[in-house]
Amino acid sequence: MATLKDVAVLAGVSVKTVSNVVNGYEFVKPENRRRVEDALNATGYRPNLGARNLRRGRTGFIALVVPELSIPYFGELAGGIIAAAAEHDWSVLIEQTQGDRARERKVITDLGPHMVDGAIVSPQAVVPDDIATPGVPVVLLGEHPLPLPLDHVGIDNVTAARTAVHHLIDLGRTRIAVIGQHPTRGTATQRLAGYRQAIAEAGLTEIVAPALRYHHSDGALAMTELLDRPERPDAVFCFNDMLALGAVRVAHDRGLRVPDDIAIAGFDNTEHSAYSVPSLTTIAPDKAALARAAVDLVHRRAIDKEDFPPQDVSIPFALEVRESTTP
Amino acid sequence: MATLKDVAVLAGVSVKTVSNVVNGYEFVKPENRRRVEDALNATGYRPNLGARNLRRGRTGFIALVVPELSIPYFGELAGGIIAAAAEHDWSVLIEQTQGDRARERKVITDLGPHMVDGAIVSPQAVVPDDIATPGVPVVLLGEHPLPLPLDHVGIDNVTAARTAVHHLIDLGRTRIAVIGQHPTRGTATQRLAGYRQAIAEAGLTEIVAPALRYHHSDGALAMTELLDRPERPDAVFCFNDMLALGAVRVAHDRGLRVPDDIAIAGFDNTEHSAYSVPSLTTIAPDKAALARAAVDLVHRRAIDKEDFPPQDVSIPFALEVRESTTP
Repeated sequence: MATLKDVAVLAGVSVKTVSNVVNGYEFVKPENRRRVEDALNATGYRPNLGARNLRRGRTGFIALVVPELSIPYFGELAGGIIAAAAEHDWSVLIEQTQGDRARERKVITDLGPHMVDGAIVSPQAVVPDDIATPGVPVVLLGEHPLPLPLDHVGIDNVTAARTAVHHLIDLGRTRIAVIGQHPTRGTATQRLAGYRQAIAEAGLTEIVAPALRYHHSDGALAMTELLDRPERPDAVFCFNDMLALGAVRVAHDRGLRVPDDIAIAGFDNTEHSAYSVPSLTTIAPDKAALARAAVDLVHRRAIDKEDFPPQDVSIPFALEVRESTTP
Repeated sequence: MATLKDVAVLAGVSVKTVSNVVNGYEFVKPENRRRVEDALNATGYRPNLGARNLRRGRTGFIALVVPELSIPYFGELAGGIIAAAAEHDWSVLIEQTQGDRARERKVITDLGPHMVDGAIVSPQAVVPDDIATPGVPVVLLGEHPLPLPLDHVGIDNVTAARTAVHHLIDLGRTRIAVIGQHPTRGTATQRLAGYRQAIAEAGLTEIVAPALRYHHSDGALAMTELLDRPERPDAVFCFNDMLALGAVRVAHDRGLRVPDDIAIAGFDNTEHSAYSVPSLTTIAPDKAALARAAVDLVHRRAIDKEDFPPQDVSIPFALEVRESTTP
């Protein structure tokens, strides 16, 4: 493999000049830069990123820990984080936990400065003791409440859920069910709390259906169970868009009109929700802002070596009203 | 940070025994294993994966290079590859290229043994010279044809596209359009070839609409353009599910019944296609088999150091017939 020196000899410049070009420094004469670039192409020189990062005291990697990439919300989020991380010269290592506590604990425990400069973790099941002392700066994402002195970036899920349910109440719906309850998921706990507040404020009765995971099939199963109850709900708020689209499908199969007979709202504003038939009313977190905020916090601690109290960054959200609730 | 020795002292066993437990060897007395596990928890010992991998002559990482994770097909594929890689103790680094040739070339050129043990690359735009001599074992995924001596795992896209179009022909459709043509994308080139074969075999006329990217909005735009032509198509084959669902949405907005007035088929069998209204007829590649085959090939070359001729592994696919083509 070609070395810096090979490139320098071929270009007729000093090793230092080649190094300046490779490292992207600005003050290189245009003529020399051109000669170096030609020589780099001719020799096929590859910078040793490992060695370069070692010199800089960084690994060049950050970890992103999510439940599962096949859930479009996490796919979209991961895409945003990879883009934001690339601006800081970071490559992103992605680990999946399936929201399982043991896997979350293992992945987080294995993080260390020999492997990554920092991590962005979207936990679903770990308890504080599991990640009390991470070996690198960790930013927590999302809704799982962990009373730890770690940075956190998320949206106000209680308010977001209340907002969605108040929208259904404002439409005159009185039998409003919720799909997604789960005993150990922070997401579920906070969104259920918001639902309960709104239902109590309106003097209505709670109708709660659990979901084991948050895929279309889970939403379809929960909706089937709700529609089999003696009194049918006239609205359903689902804890993510996949649950909601599964529910829409079952309503359709039962010959119910959405939203006339039953209004359905989701959460996440994943790309499909604007194009489904009917299009889906949903809570839209600012995913790009969330990705940027998380990456910036890791960078400030891991690379800028800033010392500051744990941050709790609240990212804005909006209610996107579409056809599944408004005819 | 606790060392192996600290753990051994606390557990009252040898360092070797601790090492055997940490490395997952089977032949450790249950009593000793329990004591070591307690001591591991008590000390918060973290194995130095970097050092371990160095000893083993591997980095512990493989790279996955895809256009964009926010496309559900790539999200699902990445999930499968992370799962398959975990079985080989690999963490997966994911890079996004947006299907841009310069970014694809840069990402692939930067791969090297200092960074990853191997790579799985889903290219869309690179030409052979860009990746003629990768620094680590590379498995190419998908449809971009590169006449290089590298392993390749994919499905027979020409046949798959022909199968989808023949299905539309068998339903009696005669004005069958295609959405997704793109001058530099391998995916588009191969699927277009299959479409053209089927159309020619049936003596029909080609109706081709391009797509800049493969999101819902691109499908909606192409469908709008097709429906504005003097003679409306009675069927559309789209090069992925997102294009197809965007097209379904536009048909719905124009008051057309799918499939009665216009049949629509997609490609990829992403999770949503079974639940959309109408559910989507689509080509279903065996994504889990694809992920496993790619990871296994990297492992055989990178870790087992096997030497064998470049493999071209063809993964099976099926046509999933659903409501968007059959009433």
